[in-house]
Amino acid sequence: MSLSISPLATPFPAMPPVAGVTLRVARARYKEWDRCDLTFVELAPGTTVAGVTTQSRCPSPEVEWCRQALVLGEARALVVNAGNSNAFTGHRGRAAVEAIAAQTAAHLGCRPSDVFVASTGVIGVPLPIDKAQAGLTAAYAAPAADWRAAAETIGTTDTYAKGATATAIVDGRSVTIAAIIKGSGMIAPDMATMLGFIFTDAAVEAPFLQAALSAANTRTFSCITVDSDTSTSDTVLAFATGAAGNVPLSGDDSDGADAFRAALADVCRQLALLVVRDGEGASKLIEIAVEGAESDASAHRIAMSIANSPLVKTAIAGEDANWGRIVMAVGKAGEPAERDRLSIRFGATQVARGGLAVEDYDEAPVAAHLKGQEIAIGVDLGLGEGRATVWTCDLTHGYISINADYRS
Amino acid sequence: MSLSISPLATPFPAMPPVAGVTLRVARARYKEWDRCDLTFVELAPGTTVAGVTTQSRCPSPEVEWCRQALVLGEARALVVNAGNSNAFTGHRGRAAVEAIAAQTAAHLGCRPSDVFVASTGVIGVPLPIDKAQAGLTAAYAAPAADWRAAAETIGTTDTYAKGATATAIVDGRSVTIAAIIKGSGMIAPDMATMLGFIFTDAAVEAPFLQAALSAANTRTFSCITVDSDTSTSDTVLAFATGAAGNVPLSGDDSDGADAFRAALADVCRQLALLVVRDGEGASKLIEIAVEGAESDASAHRIAMSIANSPLVKTAIAGEDANWGRIVMAVGKAGEPAERDRLSIRFGATQVARGGLAVEDYDEAPVAAHLKGQEIAIGVDLGLGEGRATVWTCDLTHGYISINADYRS
Repeated sequence: MSLSISPLATPFPAMPPVAGVTLRVARARYKEWDRCDLTFVELAPGTTVAGVTTQSRCPSPEVEWCRQALVLGEARALVVNAGNSNAFTGHRGRAAVEAIAAQTAAHLGCRPSDVFVASTGVIGVPLPIDKAQAGLTAAYAAPAADWRAAAETIGTTDTYAKGATATAIVDGRSVTIAAIIKGSGMIAPDMATMLGFIFTDAAVEAPFLQAALSAANTRTFSCITVDSDTSTSDTVLAFATGAAGNVPLSGDDSDGADAFRAALADVCRQLALLVVRDGEGASKLIEIAVEGAESDASAHRIAMSIANSPLVKTAIAGEDANWGRIVMAVGKAGEPAERDRLSIRFGATQVARGGLAVEDYDEAPVAAHLKGQEIAIGVDLGLGEGRATVWTCDLTHGYISINADYRS
Repeated sequence: MSLSISPLATPFPAMPPVAGVTLRVARARYKEWDRCDLTFVELAPGTTVAGVTTQSRCPSPEVEWCRQALVLGEARALVVNAGNSNAFTGHRGRAAVEAIAAQTAAHLGCRPSDVFVASTGVIGVPLPIDKAQAGLTAAYAAPAADWRAAAETIGTTDTYAKGATATAIVDGRSVTIAAIIKGSGMIAPDMATMLGFIFTDAAVEAPFLQAALSAANTRTFSCITVDSDTSTSDTVLAFATGAAGNVPLSGDDSDGADAFRAALADVCRQLALLVVRDGEGASKLIEIAVEGAESDASAHRIAMSIANSPLVKTAIAGEDANWGRIVMAVGKAGEPAERDRLSIRFGATQVARGGLAVEDYDEAPVAAHLKGQEIAIGVDLGLGEGRATVWTCDLTHGYISINADYRS
């Protein structure tokens, strides 16, 4: 099964190198394919690391490994396997992760805990250690690769390569952030794991990096949904090599703290939207902005209720200004809402206000907006100051075709 | 848009009359169609009533009306409108409900609060009072209808009429329960409202009836999902006319209390499954049984997480034994789960046990089971004694076609 490129795809950006980061790719042949599927990233000594991982109660052994390694906050390497998620494989899966870390630690002369591992692909099949070891040996000897090659290598059924970059002035120096991500395009027999890797040459102490990444995550990766299903393996890691030579960022008072956090959040936002734009079967990118809720958390839950509603998503696929389904999704969120204070807009046009349809609203701009590829839905609850914005895609025949029209 | 009959449809059963219940149907012409769309049920004096309504925070004025009337626990009539849900219509919607109750109260010489009202159909358009009034006048004069006619009249885009019946021995007398329901088949621009109406000739005090209905609801209507979207108008009402002449059921010690509760739960379970069998685009009925959870409530939330997962539902549509997606859905439920204690079966075949795939399990019976119309998924968490069973349907191109391939 081959997938056509998402109509919402954007071109791979020009991505600068990041000092202290060396990318290499190789063929481990985790599946019957002739493509690179193992990414090996070598990081300069002294690199710090932060991460956020899936909320799943059934995480992959890679996720558990990364969580343990993050406690130390130091990194020398990242290994990413594509084609086999190694999830739900018991002790054999754990052994595969340990073997990858041990081999790479021996190669670099570092601790196994300095080696981060992520895998994506089929569930329930232990990652074959022999293939991983041979792939690693090939990767160690491979020439340096560019961002695009690495972005393609971590992908599974992503329909296009995804990268993002930003710069910031920290301690008088320009620092670079470059990142790649793979997302939601997947075939048999598994699910759309999101793996994101962010690299910067800034010097950043690990606790500061973790706080900055967690804050950015709350407003970006945690605000996207394709189909409400959460992978066992979702992982975002941020690595800071320190090669820029700035005084390490360590707290709010550090020179450039705000600029770095803003740049990191910018990159995370770019990455998150790239994932939604490659949502399975997506034909429209939907931004849902909720305001007037009792709290930001309440606004977020209401926005996600709308974003995950199959009836809302199919209405957008049908270019149908079906605000009744948005009322429904607000109502089912379980959050404070008063029907008679609720207002809804598509694009810039109010279609319902104060619990009633806006009489004789102009349907032409609504219809024109819904025919576009980027749809904006606004909901005002009229209760308080809470607000949140989330992003999703529509639900089309393409989603069914990708996920139902095959046997594993 | 016309829908073909669900492949999971079952024949309308033989339904006995219930003493004290008179059904009549009429044409209110809420839409441009030539079919009956108003149901008027007259109930004998002394009829008691119980009900459960949507959890939506944006309920229809009908739901609010019924909630208020249920406090008194007495009923003389039920009016059901099909084609217009009257939801999200502000004071004009409230006025329409009040007009229906007032007219019917005058006709019967009862209190307006003895008149129950439910509506299903388009959201955001006030129910036209003139059409309702003319329809009611016609209904009052119409000949008595049978259960099937009433079941057809309350339907919207249901693809088949739905009824269920049971009997019980109460206080030495045979009492009858007969019920109709409409469910999830929908067209522009609204949602799949579930309206269920249960009638019995047993004498039942309202608090007992409410307790019995609420208990049955927890294990039936609350355990079904088509697409996770909750209507603004979901309503189930149970009416007991007392015509059977038994000593009224009033508590656990009443003669026949257990038999009546069991019969009521049986009817509710039949009705709930009829709704799932008419789920939009459904080609398979899926039963998900979770055991070994820390509590029944936890088991229910895990089962619903599986039932609402688009990836699980599309896998079943594709007849794919994709248990990795079930692991995913367990993991995302937010409930206690331990990956390495988890076991999963399709039909009678264990496919994963103790956090691992069962090596070399026999794929033939699994494949045969998945080709059938009724799919059983079993999950054992291995943690405790909590258990729950829920029902859903698969997610197919039909769902997308019904909900996206039109403009409202």
